[in-house]
Amino acid sequence: MIFITRRLEFCASHRLYNPSFSDEKNAATFGLCNNPNGHGHNYVLEVTVKGEVDPETGMVLDLKSLKKLINEEIVDKVDHKNLNVDVAFLKDVIPTAENIAIHFWNIIAPKIESGSLHEIKLFESERNFVIYRGAELARPH
Amino acid sequence: MIFITRRLEFCASHRLYNPSFSDEKNAATFGLCNNPNGHGHNYVLEVTVKGEVDPETGMVLDLKSLKKLINEEIVDKVDHKNLNVDVAFLKDVIPTAENIAIHFWNIIAPKIESGSLHEIKLFESERNFVIYRGAELARPH
Amino acid sequence: MIFITRRLEFCASHRLYNPSFSDEKNAATFGLCNNPNGHGHNYVLEVTVKGEVDPETGMVLDLKSLKKLINEEIVDKVDHKNLNVDVAFLKDVIPTAENIAIHFWNIIAPKIESGSLHEIKLFESERNFVIYRGAELARPH
Amino acid sequence: MIFITRRLEFCASHRLYNPSFSDEKNAATFGLCNNPNGHGHNYVLEVTVKGEVDPETGMVLDLKSLKKLINEEIVDKVDHKNLNVDVAFLKDVIPTAENIAIHFWNIIAPKIESGSLHEIKLFESERNFVIYRGAELARPH
Amino acid sequence: MIFITRRLEFCASHRLYNPSFSDEKNAATFGLCNNPNGHGHNYVLEVTVKGEVDPETGMVLDLKSLKKLINEEIVDKVDHKNLNVDVAFLKDVIPTAENIAIHFWNIIAPKIESGSLHEIKLFESERNFVIYRGAELARPH
Amino acid sequence: MIFITRRLEFCASHRLYNPSFSDEKNAATFGLCNNPNGHGHNYVLEVTVKGEVDPETGMVLDLKSLKKLINEEIVDKVDHKNLNVDVAFLKDVIPTAENIAIHFWNIIAPKIESGSLHEIKLFESERNFVIYRGAELARPH
Repeated sequence: MIFITRRLEFCASHRLYNPSFSDEKNAATFGLCNNPNGHGHNYVLEVTVKGEVDPETGMVLDLKSLKKLINEEIVDKVDHKNLNVDVAFLKDVIPTAENIAIHFWNIIAPKIESGSLHEIKLFESERNFVIYRGAELARPH
Repeated sequence: MIFITRRLEFCASHRLYNPSFSDEKNAATFGLCNNPNGHGHNYVLEVTVKGEVDPETGMVLDLKSLKKLINEEIVDKVDHKNLNVDVAFLKDVIPTAENIAIHFWNIIAPKIESGSLHEIKLFESERNFVIYRGAELARPH
Repeated sequence: MIFITRRLEFCASHRLYNPSFSDEKNAATFGLCNNPNGHGHNYVLEVTVKGEVDPETGMVLDLKSLKKLINEEIVDKVDHKNLNVDVAFLKDVIPTAENIAIHFWNIIAPKIESGSLHEIKLFESERNFVIYRGAELARPH
Repeated sequence: MIFITRRLEFCASHRLYNPSFSDEKNAATFGLCNNPNGHGHNYVLEVTVKGEVDPETGMVLDLKSLKKLINEEIVDKVDHKNLNVDVAFLKDVIPTAENIAIHFWNIIAPKIESGSLHEIKLFESERNFVIYRGAELARPH
Repeated sequence: MIFITRRLEFCASHRLYNPSFSDEKNAATFGLCNNPNGHGHNYVLEVTVKGEVDPETGMVLDLKSLKKLINEEIVDKVDHKNLNVDVAFLKDVIPTAENIAIHFWNIIAPKIESGSLHEIKLFESERNFVIYRGAELARPH
Repeated sequence: MIFITRRLEFCASHRLYNPSFSDEKNAATFGLCNNPNGHGHNYVLEVTVKGEVDPETGMVLDLKSLKKLINEEIVDKVDHKNLNVDVAFLKDVIPTAENIAIHFWNIIAPKIESGSLHEIKLFESERNFVIYRGAELARPH
């Protein structure tokens, strides 16, 4: 089995809070990330697809297509944006790295045409990152 | 001459716009960085001091003191903040990397106790960064 | 399943040798790392916890708590230390990256309060690193 | 279970094309990588072995031996080379990262003396990389 | 004085040789880089402009324009190319990092519209890089 | 003017203290770095030479020779060593990054055969580094 990864970057702002919490509970739960006016990150996104190598091309998939897919479906919608306000698919989502990664998976997984999505890795910084591996999709393939 | 550098990180959000510009001119001037709800970065700050080596310690200055100074005067005030709203010394400043670096210089330069501030290097991302070298301060030293 | 990682650094010295080996066997086995007066590294430690996302917080666990745990249990005890001499939990252990990672696992695994420890990754340098995944702990949780 | 990784680099040129394709199909399939005169990369290779820690040495294997093996079997043959022309074991192979990683696995896997080869990770760049995990070898060991 | 830098990447192949040298002298002079079929790199290019901050924008120059300029004049012409064969402005040039940097300077320097080009930094790899600072252009400014 | 840099790494241990200080003054001055049993780092060394490009080779100097020089004169003597005890040229020197860089300069500067040594940059870690630019040597050249 081969795993192939494409790495992209985007920068965005966010604020962590739960509207059903009191201000005190939000501050205690989310700490500095609860700052009312938000803060931001240079996010790094790694999308990994697993599959088999096509003997005619030596490739699992066409990286140009994968890059285009990720840019259109994800990066163009989150880059230079406020994740709490500007991104339709994150509406009413607490924009933790965990939640963002899960939503990225849900968008990308059904659109991978060769092989299948293996994992979404999302770095908020060099010091904090998450990996999400969702359920594999049953597909005719 | 020896130059010694301390590197620190902070994450913050910002929006680039000039309140005296029309919306159209702001959009044309600042592009994606003009997004009304802001975006953000993991900033990397490198503070470089130049000086002479104290033969008793082998050091230009005490890096622990320099780190404490930068944290108290800069990082604690900008980390996990919105640079347009939350930072007193950036009030009414367009928070470009250039302007932020100049304000950091102005805060830090008079407080260096051994040697003198040589440069402020500020990375908005791995792809964009600025260096500012302000006027050297005349000091009895 | 979500995996969340916190990365930290520490610097330490060590010497690889087995006191039951002859000098010749120690030199042949450990090479440069057998230098009698030791050498050192900037170690990078990545602690990965796996778990489920709490829908109230969007988080697997509180990263602030994880950072505090790792600092108190590990980093404060090994940073700026000699691993052969200064660290109680490495007494009589050959301080290879493998052995250090296993001991870190044994300390951290029982103290993870949400989710469970998934892996300890320890870089001696960019060129050499180990991953340890110990037995999962049975826990009521 | 412990996983230990050695990272090495090499630089090489390559051109992606399938001699049985028309020029148009080659261009459409491989894009920029089909440039007739080739292009190149600083490849980064990470070889990961899994095994158990030898209690006498605290090591899974002798990293010096692993480094020597990888250099002799791989790096010396591909570094500063044209992968389409200069490398015997890549003759008639489309030198995609996928195919290179598989051939590296096939060369290295039978020669690991302690533990067993776990994965080959090959970066064409920071933005594109593949992981290959081949079949485990049955060995007396 | 402010210095602002934009970092970009390209991958290319090259071969170092002087057609007026004998094969032996080429091999002795250029070593591995003289391989007849070439090799390649992921080059990193940092273009630094110095200038004064425009008080209306807080910027030395429009980074979007600088990026467009570098892409059109440089990156589009060298990315995924063979530097010995495919690049008009490197015809009859030995494509060492030194020579490439000088030619990049000569192309970019006259086209900087705000401030002036300060330096071209070109990494062949993390281990080898050059900086070129050409003559400053006299300009009405 | 062209500047060309070669980057190398070494790992070593050290302890900061001044034998003429009391224990209390050593602890207060050097903090964690005063740990009696030492600690260590993966040092990164960048040696930069400035010069003119030889039109016959397109190079300022032969990087292979520079690498050989740095390895023989510096890296072989400090790599996997204790800088307080094992290194003749650091005898009776407090092994701060500042002092190490100065001694490296003094060793390397007279031995550069083409161009002249421009700077020694020494990273103790990503967070702390020094640059030393010594006096230029008068040379017939």
